[in-house]
Amino acid sequence: MANPLSPIEGIVESILYVDDLATSIAFYREILQLKPIAGDQIRFQTFQVGPRQVLILFLRGGTLQPVSLPGGTIPPHDGRGPHHLGFGISAAAYDPWRQHLQEKGVKIESEAVWPKGSQSLYFRDPDGHLLELVTPGIWPNY
Amino acid sequence: MANPLSPIEGIVESILYVDDLATSIAFYREILQLKPIAGDQIRFQTFQVGPRQVLILFLRGGTLQPVSLPGGTIPPHDGRGPHHLGFGISAAAYDPWRQHLQEKGVKIESEAVWPKGSQSLYFRDPDGHLLELVTPGIWPNY
Repeated sequence: MANPLSPIEGIVESILYVDDLATSIAFYREILQLKPIAGDQIRFQTFQVGPRQVLILFLRGGTLQPVSLPGGTIPPHDGRGPHHLGFGISAAAYDPWRQHLQEKGVKIESEAVWPKGSQSLYFRDPDGHLLELVTPGIWPNY
Repeated sequence: MANPLSPIEGIVESILYVDDLATSIAFYREILQLKPIAGDQIRFQTFQVGPRQVLILFLRGGTLQPVSLPGGTIPPHDGRGPHHLGFGISAAAYDPWRQHLQEKGVKIESEAVWPKGSQSLYFRDPDGHLLELVTPGIWPNY
């Protein structure tokens, strides 16, 4: 009998496609305060998010062809939005993040409170992607 | 002087838009072996991924209008692919996962080996979204 398969451990790479990489890099670095790691400033930029995850911004239309690298080929992919992505913040950080976004001129599009007390702040990135900052207590494992 | 803002702790919610929710639920549950948590079987289905993350499948076109819930309103979002998402597996699980996908009839579209020894398996979900199973060592924090 086959051994059980080791489960997937997490989502490592989450992606958004953007129209203007420089504008988006500035937004995610300065507004969301994410740390840039790898990127070529032309086709893609990667940001570290927490201890085990990355956000990758790809120039929309720039990954429609396979990308051949020394280690192998990345197959084509692309996307059109307004996509949605949710980032985790602590409950104590909710009000400071709302204030920070407002100070930076980012419009809060909506706020929600979930049954177990988790809160969500919704706003848009430069491409109109719907971003959410959410505090723990919304999902069984968060 | 303002206190420093507590950083974003991770990406909690990663999203894919799909054309046939039942087909996609079966794929993510049976092939990727993710655990379904919340969902209405019509508009969305959520899966637990690792200790702190969820994958949310939304029916494409089903979230173009705001969704009003007792706790607040979720603003509209949507997306078209073929999007890309990368899931983490242990290095020891790489060969068993390749074999599992092949046994389930999922075509391996590409494989890659990264400079520090991380490996990636690329394949497609029922909507053509480019999925990746990647072992640690590809990013500074993974």
